[in-house]
Amino acid sequence: MESSKRGQVAPFIVMDVMRAANEREAQGHKVIHMEVGQPGTPAPALVREAAVHALASDKLGYAEALGLPALRARIARHYEEAYGVDVSPSQVVVTSGSSGGFQLAFLAAFDAGARIALAMPAYPAYRNILKALDLEPVPIRTDAETGYQLTATALEEAASGGQLDGVLIASPANPTGAMIPPAELKAIGRVAQTRNLVLISDEIYHRLTYGTVDEATALAASPDAIVVNSFSKYYSMTGWRIGWMVVPEPMVRPIERLAQNLFISVPTLSQLAAIHAFDAADELDRNLDVYRANRALLLDGLPQAGFDRLAPSDGAFYIYADVSGLTDDSEALCQRLLMEADIAVTPGTDFDPEAGRTTLRFSFAGPTDHMREAVARLKALNLRKG
Amino acid sequence: MESSKRGQVAPFIVMDVMRAANEREAQGHKVIHMEVGQPGTPAPALVREAAVHALASDKLGYAEALGLPALRARIARHYEEAYGVDVSPSQVVVTSGSSGGFQLAFLAAFDAGARIALAMPAYPAYRNILKALDLEPVPIRTDAETGYQLTATALEEAASGGQLDGVLIASPANPTGAMIPPAELKAIGRVAQTRNLVLISDEIYHRLTYGTVDEATALAASPDAIVVNSFSKYYSMTGWRIGWMVVPEPMVRPIERLAQNLFISVPTLSQLAAIHAFDAADELDRNLDVYRANRALLLDGLPQAGFDRLAPSDGAFYIYADVSGLTDDSEALCQRLLMEADIAVTPGTDFDPEAGRTTLRFSFAGPTDHMREAVARLKALNLRKG
Repeated sequence: MESSKRGQVAPFIVMDVMRAANEREAQGHKVIHMEVGQPGTPAPALVREAAVHALASDKLGYAEALGLPALRARIARHYEEAYGVDVSPSQVVVTSGSSGGFQLAFLAAFDAGARIALAMPAYPAYRNILKALDLEPVPIRTDAETGYQLTATALEEAASGGQLDGVLIASPANPTGAMIPPAELKAIGRVAQTRNLVLISDEIYHRLTYGTVDEATALAASPDAIVVNSFSKYYSMTGWRIGWMVVPEPMVRPIERLAQNLFISVPTLSQLAAIHAFDAADELDRNLDVYRANRALLLDGLPQAGFDRLAPSDGAFYIYADVSGLTDDSEALCQRLLMEADIAVTPGTDFDPEAGRTTLRFSFAGPTDHMREAVARLKALNLRKG
Repeated sequence: MESSKRGQVAPFIVMDVMRAANEREAQGHKVIHMEVGQPGTPAPALVREAAVHALASDKLGYAEALGLPALRARIARHYEEAYGVDVSPSQVVVTSGSSGGFQLAFLAAFDAGARIALAMPAYPAYRNILKALDLEPVPIRTDAETGYQLTATALEEAASGGQLDGVLIASPANPTGAMIPPAELKAIGRVAQTRNLVLISDEIYHRLTYGTVDEATALAASPDAIVVNSFSKYYSMTGWRIGWMVVPEPMVRPIERLAQNLFISVPTLSQLAAIHAFDAADELDRNLDVYRANRALLLDGLPQAGFDRLAPSDGAFYIYADVSGLTDDSEALCQRLLMEADIAVTPGTDFDPEAGRTTLRFSFAGPTDHMREAVARLKALNLRKG
């Protein structure tokens, strides 16, 4: 039996690295996980307590396809509290992680063959989901010179260069941590409106910022944007598989129909627990303090270990390193880091199949002592061009 | 903003009925839920205890895309124990409910435009997911005369009548409860092999059977089949969103790549807890006793209330009623049952847009006293052709 062409979609390399790292760990090695955007912390205590309570008191049956009304209302309130933006609960769609959100957004907004602009490097699942759904990613190259972010000018250029149906932005971005300043976000929104592009804004790394660039939601300037967010990162709930979208009213019912059919509903326990995530700011900001310390430690230590060309890291918990001075085979370098130093790191090819041959992504979402140990092991490796 | 054509996929009507029923409940009405395949029971105690333990001891981060190795191994063992069929843990894919399984199976097996045969009436998400993914469902009509099941003869006829790429079978079937006897299942497998069709077998209602037809897995006769199953029904874990597939070895890696990108992973808590579902046979078989009692009660009581043409109900927890003697607008009848008797039932149009105008589906997954009360209310309605 052969798979379809769709089944030939590229792997999400970080998941393969994670598997290799887990196998090595199972053999007794002390692996430091810097490959995956996995917080070192569990969900906040308030969330875990709510889950225990729900396990004892709720049948945990199917929920409404768009999400529990109480959670949708709480998320809507969050937009007023965090951004001063008015969002109706009816516009909120609870999803199975941001992954579920992207599937629903892409299917609801685009028919087969549609072309969607996005920055390169980028989260690999963007282009892999697009391709699996017969949509065409249109990469716009970004690099150190453009601050690793998509600009209104670059979008305008891409739109005049050929048919575009949508644009997908991310700020803070994976894998670079680069952010789009509020004024530029507004300018991108204007291009999207003029060019009649569906604007999808991935805001999954919101609240994980380090004071270098102001954070803004695309909704502030572009009320018609589709915003994708998640409880996975700042809220430290990756394995709970719960996220959300804010969508324009006319998209709610099409998305509801797709969600009914494709997902039925989002894990009920995760929904009942996630309502309480918004009340856990104290604990979550302590996590953020850890990321801030990790970031400072790596921005200081990595250059000493030979990784001296680093992307901005304004937000998220990643450092994207240009390793062209060390290798032109980032996958081989990652393999070496795992086998010789027990450090799991993701090769840039996951985010950028071409230019990523000379880049790596370090995640600093783990505990600070792991980061310190990683720097020590990397220094000891004494890397040089191989 | 307009949605794509894909966003114009049909709703999963039962989810809309559930929402209407929940709204009526919120207004203070005592609604009896017979619309949705939602067990009246929570997950087994062993599963809930494992979840509480995992909440206290596990970070609940991302899991491997194909599922936790321990769960994959336990599911593989289940095939030996339950069916005497040899399945390797490497062939097992843990999914986000059977919904996730269908998406992955369809994407991995078929490219856009492929044609997949399936019985009509059927679970509506089959054809709605197929359409959302630009695949073409090829309905094969079944009715009281053909026992509401797809046969090898009907499949052979469909295959000779036009290009077919796959066939999707379900036994026990939703909405009818009809089953495919083991010999017929073998014959269908032979047609699939001869005609080079991908055979996908939905076995989500396995173990929910009432002794009228023997239960068999498609894997027994067709080792190349893709089997989709779930912890939702017999294992009473709907809101946990966890299911599984058994797939031929060459499909594992394509499915893994798709799962990495489309889902990242399946809820970790659900995975850790579900391992224990296989040890909860005592509690689950008590649930089955309730369904057996409910089924007997309805098969006796429904005819007295005017629903006297019923599909086999060999398995699952559904009774599919031909109501052509009462109405030719099943949606209006459902609306009436909800408003006048506070009974939520699903119109046949969900499962069969044409012939379903004269059918209804009753779910008997709820508590027995609800079933008894439903029969009393239905009798009191004194239904006749309107």
